[in-house]
Amino acid sequence: MAMASVRIRQAEEGDCGNILKLIRELAEYEKLSDQVKISEEALRADGFGENPFYCCLVAELLPAPGEPQGQGIGSKIIKKVAEVALERGCSQLRLTVLDWNKGAMDLYKALGARDLTEAEGWHSFRFEEEAMRELAGK
Amino acid sequence: MAMASVRIRQAEEGDCGNILKLIRELAEYEKLSDQVKISEEALRADGFGENPFYCCLVAELLPAPGEPQGQGIGSKIIKKVAEVALERGCSQLRLTVLDWNKGAMDLYKALGARDLTEAEGWHSFRFEEEAMRELAGK
Repeated sequence: MAMASVRIRQAEEGDCGNILKLIRELAEYEKLSDQVKISEEALRADGFGENPFYCCLVAELLPAPGEPQGQGIGSKIIKKVAEVALERGCSQLRLTVLDWNKGAMDLYKALGARDLTEAEGWHSFRFEEEAMRELAGK
Repeated sequence: MAMASVRIRQAEEGDCGNILKLIRELAEYEKLSDQVKISEEALRADGFGENPFYCCLVAELLPAPGEPQGQGIGSKIIKKVAEVALERGCSQLRLTVLDWNKGAMDLYKALGARDLTEAEGWHSFRFEEEAMRELAGK
């Protein structure tokens, strides 16, 4: 299958506006737009400060005329994440995915991931900021 | 209910031996002992190097004679984690729990957490190191 040309690189601080746009587009697809509370400013501070909370890769797509966009980009990014993670000494790569997102689940399984919720019964729990403030008595 | 006296503090590098012991005891309870691959050396390097991968609190228990041990320690630790997380600018606190561990699930819910797997359908996926190496072509 013909594939668009993709370049995957480390994100820079100047990418944060586009990263936030992609976060919002993903949340819209997931029907969870109300959960996106992060600002571009927070993305800059969290990823590019002294002790970064996250590391981010971006894929730059150079679509060829007449070719379908998007073919193979997910796999390429996951492969690159695995490469960077191994370089940094990580021994696992974890992802979360919504149960109705069959396309993503099938891709992750095809690439060698295991569904731990299905196989072992892991549930993901979350305290929101309000619950955290109550817990902390603040 | 009478409670044992508990002191919660930041972990120090010298705690890593005991932390690994607790990781192994938890894994045994979870029937997942074969998944504990980390060494004390790696725990030291990951948590107490230049750019730490994790932050850890330890609870020191001073049991009073005749009192049941363990009462309320889980809640106290979670409250302290919420406090530290808020201080560091975190906006969520996430946990994973096995679906048969009703005691833990009930505690997290009682403290204000939401089961995202139940409520929204989130599944947790994992690539093991071998799958990562295949992805990265190494």
